[in-house]
Amino acid sequence: MKNINISLLAKPNIRSLRAYHAEEVPCKVKLDANESPYSGARVKKILQTLNRYPDPEAKQLRKIIAEGSRVKPENILHGNGSDELIYYLITTFGGPVLYPVPTFSMYGIIAQALGEKKIEVPLDNKFDLDIEKILAAIKRYKPKLIFLSSPNNPTGNCFSSDRILKIVEFTYSLPPTPYSLVVIDEAYQPFSKTKSFVPLLGKYGNLLVLRTLSKIGLAGLRLGFLIAGESVISEVNKVRLPFNVNSLSQAVAVEALKDKKQMRRHISSIISERKRLLAEMRKIEGITPYPSDANFVLFKVNNAEKVYNGLLRKGVLIRNMTGAVKDCLRVTAGTPGENTVFLKALREVINSEN
Amino acid sequence: MKNINISLLAKPNIRSLRAYHAEEVPCKVKLDANESPYSGARVKKILQTLNRYPDPEAKQLRKIIAEGSRVKPENILHGNGSDELIYYLITTFGGPVLYPVPTFSMYGIIAQALGEKKIEVPLDNKFDLDIEKILAAIKRYKPKLIFLSSPNNPTGNCFSSDRILKIVEFTYSLPPTPYSLVVIDEAYQPFSKTKSFVPLLGKYGNLLVLRTLSKIGLAGLRLGFLIAGESVISEVNKVRLPFNVNSLSQAVAVEALKDKKQMRRHISSIISERKRLLAEMRKIEGITPYPSDANFVLFKVNNAEKVYNGLLRKGVLIRNMTGAVKDCLRVTAGTPGENTVFLKALREVINSEN
Repeated sequence: MKNINISLLAKPNIRSLRAYHAEEVPCKVKLDANESPYSGARVKKILQTLNRYPDPEAKQLRKIIAEGSRVKPENILHGNGSDELIYYLITTFGGPVLYPVPTFSMYGIIAQALGEKKIEVPLDNKFDLDIEKILAAIKRYKPKLIFLSSPNNPTGNCFSSDRILKIVEFTYSLPPTPYSLVVIDEAYQPFSKTKSFVPLLGKYGNLLVLRTLSKIGLAGLRLGFLIAGESVISEVNKVRLPFNVNSLSQAVAVEALKDKKQMRRHISSIISERKRLLAEMRKIEGITPYPSDANFVLFKVNNAEKVYNGLLRKGVLIRNMTGAVKDCLRVTAGTPGENTVFLKALREVINSEN
Repeated sequence: MKNINISLLAKPNIRSLRAYHAEEVPCKVKLDANESPYSGARVKKILQTLNRYPDPEAKQLRKIIAEGSRVKPENILHGNGSDELIYYLITTFGGPVLYPVPTFSMYGIIAQALGEKKIEVPLDNKFDLDIEKILAAIKRYKPKLIFLSSPNNPTGNCFSSDRILKIVEFTYSLPPTPYSLVVIDEAYQPFSKTKSFVPLLGKYGNLLVLRTLSKIGLAGLRLGFLIAGESVISEVNKVRLPFNVNSLSQAVAVEALKDKKQMRRHISSIISERKRLLAEMRKIEGITPYPSDANFVLFKVNNAEKVYNGLLRKGVLIRNMTGAVKDCLRVTAGTPGENTVFLKALREVINSEN
């Protein structure tokens, strides 16, 4: 077999890209991935017709999501996770792609995979949007897409709504085309008191919202939704693979979403556990937890690597965020029992440090 | 709300693209989509942990597929259907993308969605590869990717193995880089007597094979596999979304693939039913069925539109292929009972024509 260098065949933007590594570490208590600790009780019905292709338009599912968001099914596009919708948005509209940093890593990874220019604007020292810098970057680079994750991952806070609106209004008022589409990624919105931007979709034609089922108990299904004007949905739908969401995920999600009470109960429990985590972590000397509107808490420690490994030795897996935010770790709010195990382990690890 | 033209924001290659329309027509007997009429009996186990993200590397599933294909798991990449792997291949290596026509429509649709040049080379009058024209097009356009669906959809035949090999060897012998990767799409290979190209992967570093579970009873799961050299897999894996195959599809496929006997039984039944369809259709005056190595039969009629609609009025849905092959319809081999209903309806429709 001839020795050929496949990497040289890949497009230049792919050559310098590294495969995303989703960490997998054996543990007793898994609090690293911002999943919900609960899955629904009504999830029971299985499809009997797996030999058939799934509904390409996911009609039942889009109807339920549309009702929940008080929009029409025509305003909803279903994705194999919101990851896939980010892929499709960048495929459809191209770059430059602008986003603040630190934020959800997939905006940058997917922009690079698709060969589009990335514009990264650092957050201010309160993890809020640096509005001056962002507006300047918009003027300079004319991004086609702006991604704002609010609440933001990994910092946990919501960006100021008035700053988000300033960006939406600024890009909306620019000369007809090209100007930017602003995508608010509301993956963590259910855990926040800040209002969703969905009701503003009718007002701003360049405003788009992403939602997901991954944080509210159904990460295994891979289901995300783009909510936007019909003309946006219609363009992005052109690049969607016809059968992008499988039959099982569609059926199970439709069943699970019927039990809104249970979902609300789980979300409430996660919010109160996040508050408890924050309160308890504030009492531990040597760590600085940041306020959170999401289902996780970011916190600063003196030696992130050591604390991360110390917790892991005790069977508790959290996420090491030092690559994105200096000296920081991120813990997902689990069940009350899991959080108690985490807090005890954290105290022990921090004490053994001193 | 300002009236904005979102379509002008989309990339030029998207503007002229139309969303793929997966037809949905109410019917009694559904024989239009080349699905299997059977789903597995062992498909029972459901995951209890849907709140967790799926295994990003689909380890169990890739192991089973690797064993079945006598390659290593490192030679397998899992996709949300082989559609998604075609997306990833074109994202990774770019265009031009060359394929014969008529063939599976997604090669062209995805190439256009990703803004890459398409080179379409007509098949010869026996629906085989026109080797002279293809080699000339390779020299002229230097395609990065060549897609060969064999057995071919919608014509049903395998391309001559020696012509495929000529293309593989020709592109393999070209100066180091860039030269073409040849992707053999073996979606329908289980129904054919022609041998898989997988055993040749070790010999030709530019040879890639696509397989799918969609034709052998599990279309609803959306599972496709790229089988190729480790260096190809490693490049394409960079643009794969980390959680592209959901937990349920992974779990159900692992269970279903354990029952190889049942799968083989179903495939045998489909092959003998395809033979019966062909034999019976040959007896009907006014139609010309083409030989098939797949799970469907393409046939020519005098008035395709009328026959299609006549069958539909009798509750039998097949696929109208007139857009791709003049005057042709395509019927998927169903259960013996379904095929009998189809044959009876077809005779009646053709007789009422005369």
